Amino acid sequence: SGLVLVKNPHLDLMEEDILYHLDLGTKTHNLPAMFGDIKFVCVGGSPNRMRAFAQFMRRELGLAGDGEDVADICAGSDRYAMYRAGPVLSISHGMGIPSISIMLHELIKLLHHAKCRDVTIIRIGTSGGLGIEAGSVVITDVAVDPSFQPRFEQVVLDDVVVRSTELDKDLAEELLACSREIPDFPTLIGHTMCTYDFYEGQGRLDGALCSFSREKKLEYLRRAYDAGVRNIEMESTAFAALCGLCGLKGESCRFHLL
Amino acid sequence: SGLVLVKNPHLDLMEEDILYHLDLGTKTHNLPAMFGDIKFVCVGGSPNRMRAFAQFMRRELGLAGDGEDVADICAGSDRYAMYRAGPVLSISHGMGIPSISIMLHELIKLLHHAKCRDVTIIRIGTSGGLGIEAGSVVITDVAVDPSFQPRFEQVVLDDVVVRSTELDKDLAEELLACSREIPDFPTLIGHTMCTYDFYEGQGRLDGALCSFSREKKLEYLRRAYDAGVRNIEMESTAFAALCGLCGLKGESCRFHLL
Repeated sequence: SGLVLVKNPHLDLMEEDILYHLDLGTKTHNLPAMFGDIKFVCVGGSPNRMRAFAQFMRRELGLAGDGEDVADICAGSDRYAMYRAGPVLSISHGMGIPSISIMLHELIKLLHHAKCRDVTIIRIGTSGGLGIEAGSVVITDVAVDPSFQPRFEQVVLDDVVVRSTELDKDLAEELLACSREIPDFPTLIGHTMCTYDFYEGQGRLDGALCSFSREKKLEYLRRAYDAGVRNIEMESTAFAALCGLCGLKGESCRFHLL
Repeated sequence: SGLVLVKNPHLDLMEEDILYHLDLGTKTHNLPAMFGDIKFVCVGGSPNRMRAFAQFMRRELGLAGDGEDVADICAGSDRYAMYRAGPVLSISHGMGIPSISIMLHELIKLLHHAKCRDVTIIRIGTSGGLGIEAGSVVITDVAVDPSFQPRFEQVVLDDVVVRSTELDKDLAEELLACSREIPDFPTLIGHTMCTYDFYEGQGRLDGALCSFSREKKLEYLRRAYDAGVRNIEMESTAFAALCGLCGLKGESCRFHLL
């Protein structure tokens, strides 16, 4: 049917669903009217960047009101920011797995309540590249954890639930084909490694509070490269797992900054 | 000496330390002049709340410029917000362990570079209470993980480093004594449980995307209570571990909202 699957039978029995961190709810807002025609959701860490992306999309789509005046739909909350450009929703998710998990829970329930169909969700942003040219974009085929496994371990109460982190292969190929239409836009498909921390988790010798050897770091990164990892960030496993769980067509495209 | 310990020998060999997510650095800013006299750092999730807290502190301390005009010291970054009120720094950390870890790494290096002495760091904010009166404040004696253990497992490259999550007992008692000077201010000392997610990790039947039984949830929360847990949030283990690692006197006080 193209609808978003929510595997929680309690949800449809509730009188009201408050999407607290988005400052939206089923009683306070007419979600189908506000969001029913959404076809693409783009998510990224920084609120300012997601605002700039919505402005860019408005210009690209030739929509009225392009320019400076995109309104933050979640202005009543300072946890996330959300902007609209026609059928495209642009939302920030902060940094790290817990932060993106909260946003995705509320976003996915929002799409469910709004009865959206055939939604594609794309994570955009920056990442650290591994053995690739600076300025490259990595399209993720599968997200892996720090031991290079394609899995996301979610603690549900005190049980560990293991979920798959494969992303949509057709969508990855489609995005790669788009990149080829643009000159000088180095793009590749590869594995993305998701860490739990920016400094110690990614072995930043010059940034971490603890110490470890440069040799150990290089040996680890070499093993990661050999396992197919081409970039490193902090949200991809949770993103892939929640898209998979709810039947959303999802993809992650990260720009390798340095 | 009261200085902040940073156990990374690489740090003092660097020509420049860029505290990227705070938009500060050792070459671009005179950190000892800007922050050398800081004695208290208060951290919390929401940028708006930390701004309101800085305004409140300015009023309480009778400082010039109280009211509306506190400037965000990290205005060039939209990752965190930082405000000053005399010797008190007020900083937001977003939601979840990875987000607070990035901020604490950069904050602790900032205190180190600024040569601050005898700094006390207090985490303030809201949490979910467990078997306690609504409106109570929980002062954490020890932060525990979802299996009720007083530990924080930090993945450093692919090693798991286990750190202690005990907080400063004298400071906890001092804060409890302060609370007794204020009428109708229910305050207690207890364990704080730190989860990796707000919905599934905390067993929100009505909010999660997956399903589980109410009985399982109640049984788990009963075991948590029996283990000494009095509130649940998403940052305390990382906070306690990093304060302990760097010799910072740290405490967490959470207001139980509902």
